[in-house]
Amino acid sequence: MKLLRFGPAGAEKPGILDMNGDIRDLSGVIDDFAGEAFTDENLQKIRALDPASLPKAAGNPRIGACVGNVRNAICIGLNYSDHAAEAGAAVPKEPIVFQKSSSAICGPNDNVEIPRGSQKTDWEVELCVVIGKRAKYVTEAEALDHVAGYCVANDVSEREFQSERGGQWTKGKSHETFGPIGPWLVTRDEVPDPQALDLWLELDGVRRQDGNTKNMIFSVKTIISYLSQFMTLTPGDIIMTGTPAGVGLGQKPAPFFLKPGQEMKLGVVGLGVQTQTTVQA
Amino acid sequence: MKLLRFGPAGAEKPGILDMNGDIRDLSGVIDDFAGEAFTDENLQKIRALDPASLPKAAGNPRIGACVGNVRNAICIGLNYSDHAAEAGAAVPKEPIVFQKSSSAICGPNDNVEIPRGSQKTDWEVELCVVIGKRAKYVTEAEALDHVAGYCVANDVSEREFQSERGGQWTKGKSHETFGPIGPWLVTRDEVPDPQALDLWLELDGVRRQDGNTKNMIFSVKTIISYLSQFMTLTPGDIIMTGTPAGVGLGQKPAPFFLKPGQEMKLGVVGLGVQTQTTVQA
Repeated sequence: MKLLRFGPAGAEKPGILDMNGDIRDLSGVIDDFAGEAFTDENLQKIRALDPASLPKAAGNPRIGACVGNVRNAICIGLNYSDHAAEAGAAVPKEPIVFQKSSSAICGPNDNVEIPRGSQKTDWEVELCVVIGKRAKYVTEAEALDHVAGYCVANDVSEREFQSERGGQWTKGKSHETFGPIGPWLVTRDEVPDPQALDLWLELDGVRRQDGNTKNMIFSVKTIISYLSQFMTLTPGDIIMTGTPAGVGLGQKPAPFFLKPGQEMKLGVVGLGVQTQTTVQA
Repeated sequence: MKLLRFGPAGAEKPGILDMNGDIRDLSGVIDDFAGEAFTDENLQKIRALDPASLPKAAGNPRIGACVGNVRNAICIGLNYSDHAAEAGAAVPKEPIVFQKSSSAICGPNDNVEIPRGSQKTDWEVELCVVIGKRAKYVTEAEALDHVAGYCVANDVSEREFQSERGGQWTKGKSHETFGPIGPWLVTRDEVPDPQALDLWLELDGVRRQDGNTKNMIFSVKTIISYLSQFMTLTPGDIIMTGTPAGVGLGQKPAPFFLKPGQEMKLGVVGLGVQTQTTVQA
């Protein structure tokens, strides 16, 4: 299933994509796609429905973040060796973990703000995992049972705030609109191998990132098992799994960063495409 | 007002402390103390009630976290110079910001787990700020208008996970039960000066931390204004503002850490007292 949220920001309705790619309105069935809505049991109820029996969404609505009321946006740093190299960092021995403020999460095509005073706002296409089942001390073998599904994310980052303002990356990862997710969550049954997905990003029509999740240093199942040793993951938590090479910081001969009025277009093949315009905060 | 949540974990009801220190049940008035419940407008509705007109909570219920469904648990690191010194760290030039997983948040007297494999679980009494109004690019002069109230927090920390497992502190701050908050939120009108509060912690009856919020390097209003440059704070977000000297890591002649079966008792004068027993995860 392809599950999404549509409508004005803050008033999104839950929906499902039908066979024709039209949005069907699930608001008569569930309140929202958030938290416990992502358990296997609750998703099974939706799977039992015939999308054709649901009302079509009117017009051409805005698409919201495919997960509502995110409580934990967990990110994995430097998880592709080519990106670690371009960032001038060593390949990590253990996953690097940080959190992005929940208030950064936004719709896949919403404008992305350049923070005031920012000189180094950067892009990062990523595979994003949505948790469907509480995970505490889970093994790698059982880890993927804790996934509701997958989506595209842009882990937008301000490099100066991240690394030159007194330690801890949260500061550079949390500006409002720094976390577009969607357009939809693809349930895990439709993603047989999360380590075989192409992902890419274009800035103003020029391809800048081109990777495949097979090149992750730590796979999705390793990440989930690892995280569950340090924190309890709960339904509706999201994990951004790191970005391949080609971010602004890694451009040759010199890094360059986002300016207002640019367009980012990015996708993970099979999970959909996002398009964002940058604006000044 | 002293606002709290009481009842079994996951099924807490909102309550208010009356003049006699008894809990009055607010569940007929509001759903929960979470998110938008902390706006000035919503708190004003509760202020207009006579607590004596509300039903008394039966028996001696468990006290839950005083904020429900926390979306962002933001923490400030090394915010007291004596603690920075005992940790062998320089006094920070700008606030150090990291996030604790929301799933760490628990009731003030719940058991605190020692994670599996942990050798360095440590305590940190802190003043915790609860946001009541959206804050984005706010000045220091207006910062405290964005506070709903204050409470006690124990920013429980695993030092090896925090600092010896590949960077970024989140890993050592996020284990389930690593964030007792409460017993109650004291609304900001009853805390005229958040920089004049004694705070303390005792381990098995021995005083280990003894500080005052006047010794913060960055004050509450500075922290809120600063954070609002990097992320949008929303109602129900919490900020743990750092701990004074006397944590396990700073003990002389040698550091020592928590073992199962110990008792932490901690408080901020005027905001109540927490008591936790440590147990093995």
